[in-house]
Amino acid sequence: MNKEITIYDIAKGIGVSPTTVSRALNNHPAVKEKTKKKIFQAASEMGYQSNVFAANLRSKKTNNIGVIVPSLNSSFQASVLAGMEKIASEAGYNLVITQSLESSEKEIANTLSMFKSRVDGLIVSLASEAEKLEHFEPFHKKGIPVLFYDRVANSRDSVGVTIDNIHAAQIATNHLIEQGCKNIVHVLGSTKISVYAERLKGFKYALIDNGMIFKEDQVIVLDKIDENGAEYVVDKILNLNPLPDGLFVSNDACAASCMNQLIQKGIKIPEDIALVGFNNEVISRLVHPKITTINYPGVEMGEVVMRNLINHLDEPETMLLQNTNKITLRSDLIIRDSSLKKK
Amino acid sequence: MNKEITIYDIAKGIGVSPTTVSRALNNHPAVKEKTKKKIFQAASEMGYQSNVFAANLRSKKTNNIGVIVPSLNSSFQASVLAGMEKIASEAGYNLVITQSLESSEKEIANTLSMFKSRVDGLIVSLASEAEKLEHFEPFHKKGIPVLFYDRVANSRDSVGVTIDNIHAAQIATNHLIEQGCKNIVHVLGSTKISVYAERLKGFKYALIDNGMIFKEDQVIVLDKIDENGAEYVVDKILNLNPLPDGLFVSNDACAASCMNQLIQKGIKIPEDIALVGFNNEVISRLVHPKITTINYPGVEMGEVVMRNLINHLDEPETMLLQNTNKITLRSDLIIRDSSLKKK
Repeated sequence: MNKEITIYDIAKGIGVSPTTVSRALNNHPAVKEKTKKKIFQAASEMGYQSNVFAANLRSKKTNNIGVIVPSLNSSFQASVLAGMEKIASEAGYNLVITQSLESSEKEIANTLSMFKSRVDGLIVSLASEAEKLEHFEPFHKKGIPVLFYDRVANSRDSVGVTIDNIHAAQIATNHLIEQGCKNIVHVLGSTKISVYAERLKGFKYALIDNGMIFKEDQVIVLDKIDENGAEYVVDKILNLNPLPDGLFVSNDACAASCMNQLIQKGIKIPEDIALVGFNNEVISRLVHPKITTINYPGVEMGEVVMRNLINHLDEPETMLLQNTNKITLRSDLIIRDSSLKKK
Repeated sequence: MNKEITIYDIAKGIGVSPTTVSRALNNHPAVKEKTKKKIFQAASEMGYQSNVFAANLRSKKTNNIGVIVPSLNSSFQASVLAGMEKIASEAGYNLVITQSLESSEKEIANTLSMFKSRVDGLIVSLASEAEKLEHFEPFHKKGIPVLFYDRVANSRDSVGVTIDNIHAAQIATNHLIEQGCKNIVHVLGSTKISVYAERLKGFKYALIDNGMIFKEDQVIVLDKIDENGAEYVVDKILNLNPLPDGLFVSNDACAASCMNQLIQKGIKIPEDIALVGFNNEVISRLVHPKITTINYPGVEMGEVVMRNLINHLDEPETMLLQNTNKITLRSDLIIRDSSLKKK
């Protein structure tokens, strides 16, 4: 690495005093505009980097915000990060992003690494394995804000941004019942993850509300709910007797893949089985028939989480976050052909 | 924010000297294992953060790697970032991620911000608007490595990781010609972006190789090639006389959406128009018919870029990067039903 450029080099280069250079770079009114311009230009040409480390040592602020996602390779998480980055970058913050790969161990290591590198705030969507929350204690102790989104912590002293997963599952299940379904199967991910546990509740509540009895074989749980889980699901479904007449799958890619495999086996969608997915991913609009789904606004969720965190960082005296426990975003059912038995 | 915990607090807390605490935290052999353990535990319980700023001030290393992507909300970029994060986190580096949103202005601002925050290295996939590369000069001057991927810089002194886009477009086009297509249309993004410019070359080369004449109306250019561009494309195609018999679309989501709209207009795929996409996204496997596409290995690309950067950072004396200009990954044509006129 080349020699570090200092204000002394700049001063020497254009024949002014180091004090003048320092003042100009800090936009001091005592330096003439013309001189400032000359100094800025020289600083830029010589490759001067203002000494952020020393500056940080004084202000104790890094302007970095840590984000821990379960997996970066997810279209939902991609949309959330896009929303976060937009707000953070407008406010002058950088995102430091890691993935837990659904491992509690890696989540703890990531959290520790974020703490050590002194992020100004931390945003987390929990790993499926994560059951304990002690690794966030050091942040609480130092007053560094921690916000959760999508997969939130079930604890009094944290802030979580979610959709109402219970309600969303209720409206999805109610819709299938309205279409005449009497025997609905719900496909979901591990109930250790808050979102799936809540959607399962909503599914059961909708059955109860409609006077139906819930049976254990109406639920198919996948370790990882995505395109690759469909074979297992379809196999399970085809072995049910009678065949279900409704299917509520908690992920669009998995729903699309299930639908294709069911159609291949000669089952008509929606006539034989009406189908509802979750997330409103691009895929739900491009398969045939198009999939009825819950609109989960990823970009907006990213924006809301980040805006709340930054408002708190910039004006901690408002105590806004201290008094907030939960922020719930709007989500809706988008009705398409995959579920419309009655047209 | 609460009071900063120092080694003096830890020393006082457990009744040893500050020197012993400092030595223990740096794993000095002179401190007994039992004492070390006690000190580590106290440091953890009290919420001690090692003074990374002061440490950085000495080592001039942040262990942060900057990544600038055109858009975070993209399934291809999501897979690349997943690959990058895996390698970086194993090697103890953090990713600082920003998006240029295809704006040259924002790319320049992001680059400057990365330079000021002193990333150890920078990885960039260029914005479509980016034509000049001067904003990377400060990095070159200071010997901070800059690597490009996917959308790479056409310059001698940079390292770029890509697939062979010319070759990929050639095999896609050759395949359509082998299927009997005589009038193929190529849909692509702005040719200011290297990947599209190269694929257009490959398309033309394949025509020439097969003794066909290239006409300007065989190319449809979209500002942004995605699901939403399909309406414009289908409209253009249906106004061509004669109708093309082959379609090579440089993005799977756009290809899938075009296919659906063409089918709706009564056009048979592949019988009337044979279709080839690009990227091998999940969507290409879940639509009907399944889409023939070029496998673009995003996760692997992320891994290769990051591994090369970190090898260079950890062992700059090998000069590996200085002598490398281009790294090309394997890409293949995956043949599915959307293009198979001859079965």
